[in-house]
Amino acid sequence: MTHSAPDPLDLDAFRETGHQLIDWIADYLGGLESRPVVEATSPGDVRAKLPDRAPEQGKALSGLLADLDEVVVPGISHWQHPNWFAYFPAMSSPPAILGELAAAGLGVQGMLWSTSPAVTEVESHVLDWLVDLTGVPQDWKTTGPGGGVLQMSASDSTHTALVVAREVCRKRTGAGAEQMVVYTSSQAHSSLEKGANVAGFGHIRLLDVDQNFAVEPATLRSAIEDDLAAGLTPAFVCAAVGTTGTTAVDPVRAFGELASEFRLWFHVDAAYAGAAMLCDEFRHHQDGLELAHSYTFNAHKWLATNFDCSIFWVADRTPLIETMSIVPPYLRNAATDAGEVIDYRDWHVPLGRRFRALKLWWVLKAFGAEGLRAMIRRHVGYAKSLTRFVESDPRFELFAPTTFALVCFRHRDGDEATRALAASMNANGVYVTPSEANGQAFIRVSIGSTWTEDRHVDQLQALIDRLA
Amino acid sequence: MTHSAPDPLDLDAFRETGHQLIDWIADYLGGLESRPVVEATSPGDVRAKLPDRAPEQGKALSGLLADLDEVVVPGISHWQHPNWFAYFPAMSSPPAILGELAAAGLGVQGMLWSTSPAVTEVESHVLDWLVDLTGVPQDWKTTGPGGGVLQMSASDSTHTALVVAREVCRKRTGAGAEQMVVYTSSQAHSSLEKGANVAGFGHIRLLDVDQNFAVEPATLRSAIEDDLAAGLTPAFVCAAVGTTGTTAVDPVRAFGELASEFRLWFHVDAAYAGAAMLCDEFRHHQDGLELAHSYTFNAHKWLATNFDCSIFWVADRTPLIETMSIVPPYLRNAATDAGEVIDYRDWHVPLGRRFRALKLWWVLKAFGAEGLRAMIRRHVGYAKSLTRFVESDPRFELFAPTTFALVCFRHRDGDEATRALAASMNANGVYVTPSEANGQAFIRVSIGSTWTEDRHVDQLQALIDRLA
Repeated sequence: MTHSAPDPLDLDAFRETGHQLIDWIADYLGGLESRPVVEATSPGDVRAKLPDRAPEQGKALSGLLADLDEVVVPGISHWQHPNWFAYFPAMSSPPAILGELAAAGLGVQGMLWSTSPAVTEVESHVLDWLVDLTGVPQDWKTTGPGGGVLQMSASDSTHTALVVAREVCRKRTGAGAEQMVVYTSSQAHSSLEKGANVAGFGHIRLLDVDQNFAVEPATLRSAIEDDLAAGLTPAFVCAAVGTTGTTAVDPVRAFGELASEFRLWFHVDAAYAGAAMLCDEFRHHQDGLELAHSYTFNAHKWLATNFDCSIFWVADRTPLIETMSIVPPYLRNAATDAGEVIDYRDWHVPLGRRFRALKLWWVLKAFGAEGLRAMIRRHVGYAKSLTRFVESDPRFELFAPTTFALVCFRHRDGDEATRALAASMNANGVYVTPSEANGQAFIRVSIGSTWTEDRHVDQLQALIDRLA
Repeated sequence: MTHSAPDPLDLDAFRETGHQLIDWIADYLGGLESRPVVEATSPGDVRAKLPDRAPEQGKALSGLLADLDEVVVPGISHWQHPNWFAYFPAMSSPPAILGELAAAGLGVQGMLWSTSPAVTEVESHVLDWLVDLTGVPQDWKTTGPGGGVLQMSASDSTHTALVVAREVCRKRTGAGAEQMVVYTSSQAHSSLEKGANVAGFGHIRLLDVDQNFAVEPATLRSAIEDDLAAGLTPAFVCAAVGTTGTTAVDPVRAFGELASEFRLWFHVDAAYAGAAMLCDEFRHHQDGLELAHSYTFNAHKWLATNFDCSIFWVADRTPLIETMSIVPPYLRNAATDAGEVIDYRDWHVPLGRRFRALKLWWVLKAFGAEGLRAMIRRHVGYAKSLTRFVESDPRFELFAPTTFALVCFRHRDGDEATRALAASMNANGVYVTPSEANGQAFIRVSIGSTWTEDRHVDQLQALIDRLA
């Protein structure tokens, strides 16, 4: 480094810019309402602001914040905006941001228990807390035969479940993956189809749904029986507790009983709705969960914890570890050899792992269980209010039941009017997702931004009323 | 929430605790030397400090920092300690920590270009910069037929390469994965064997190495020919540029030529050593890279960027996207339909993705290319100095050539003396990794902590001298 370049390791400069960045973030979050939800950007706009080549000489840390204002903010969609009603929420919150910062500052690796025990133990402990908080089976605690682990996304959790299921099925039946069949709803998240492809399954059945967008048990049974008759090997079934399209709920117990009858791996995808299970009144949707082999729910959706933080629970950790464990000499250590610790390296594809449990722990502490329940009930209340509006206005029809905090509706004038309304809403200060199912257009209004309050939902309702 | 609980969304409290946390991190990093490298912890010690159940009522943000001092720090290994010489470096640096914080504060999702264009464009742009900085083929730029993407870990990058290779091979030959063979060094990282298992390959050949721990081309040729004669389908070969055990370098060009001759997918794993390619003098190790289909290098190892930040480059993005793309209705958008943007969702298993490129961009800016080259040369210089010491002292022998900044040596008195020396070093203020290869014990001294200076290497040398 030439003597004139600033030292990137200067901790005083880090303090100064760090304080400024904390303030920048507080100002950003507090001021979101004055910005459009989605900044107007064309392909290439952001890159055009960057030099063709990386800088040769280092720049002072204090100059980095200007990048946020000049390059980044004009080129993003504000997922934390109180008028964000698109996709599913990707919640963030002050304790989660602090947890991510602390993890980055510590810079430790949790691939093995021994590489930083607190990374593993906090993760196991907090996921065990969540077993109690969400009412999933006690066997899923790390103190029992199962256990929880944080993955990057539900796609990773589901892919992991598929790979373990494939190996379990192969050992039992001798079938190759090309002969194996995966069953899930036609309304399932794309990660099911993608995960099945990535894991090499030869067949995936995207099952037809009923008028509530859930799969009927008879549909699953008949698909399994057809495949058995054709000489294929049914291997894996996924029930959605809250589909991505409409938050429909597949019948968990009936799926589990069919999985037991035909010896399929039973996975439950509650990526979005898992958070709702903190509240008793939603638990009936997960009745039968004791029949599941694996389960995923994303704290980074609706549990106030920044992405990435996807929870993956298994009822029995043995087949998971048997599938994922590889022990080279440079990773051997006494604690692992004695079998008295969890090495999360053996619970997923990646080896390295950062301290993601810290932010989840801090969210649980800062909100408290009652604070999180209150937040979820507040969002559900907003969704109920919007649902009543849609149902009471003759211009609209509810497209699917409002089960959690997603409202799906359409314009009675048809697909074109529905799409036009969505486009017009998105041009007027809010952001919703236009979608379709069963060949019909509808609008997804997903309520769950950290900063959404009563008045934002009132304004949304008034906007729909005005634009329809 | 009861009226007495503090509001977890209070931005003034976030500012206050955020400032304290920035100072805590600066103090932590500046004060590492006064701590042991590895805290003494027994299984269960951390969990014993946590309550059995999650708190019902929320706590003030200001109380969170005590968790770091009371629960976390006593239970971790200090990967950022200047006396950390274990595994490979997992570097962190002030600009990277700030980048991770900014990404968490923004809380945006980059699964599609349209979900926050800057996430995608900064990532493409910075990875294109790195093509020039590291001298890998120009075709790997996103402006050409290939392109780069950030993955969580090299395990994910390698697994992705394996899955794409499997699909390319299947389409060309009709073979099932059970018939396909993966070739790599017996010294390859465990992620090769794990990735091959996860992707469902039926066979993996861990090839014998020469006295420098690299695979000879004749060994690879003969393995391929044997498998062809046995009716199997060779599908994938990986060359390591810097193995995990000893940073050995497989012959890239010869591997690439054999891959071309037998139509195998050619992947290069430079997870650790890729960073060294910023310096011209190391580029001869990657001669022949234009024959590779895919390549991985971890900015989170030796490029001053916090985990996770694994770079994955492909020479042709078409088979990657064909393998990974699934487009459900709720993810359709005009920019994607027009084909004028990159949607990184189609470049790996996960759908969601945070703004990881921000920290890599800020590292490149704050250090500048010349600052990063100087850092790498400084670490390599330390390793050379330690190598000279080992070679000049009759008690020791160099176990493998020092190619980058990893020094592998052993005690001439044999395995027991070598293991005892490692244990004794680790009990005396430094942390190294005891390992073995070809049935012999050796000590890995990996130099590359952000905070390691001349005096730490001098002290290390004196310690070895004293303890041997």
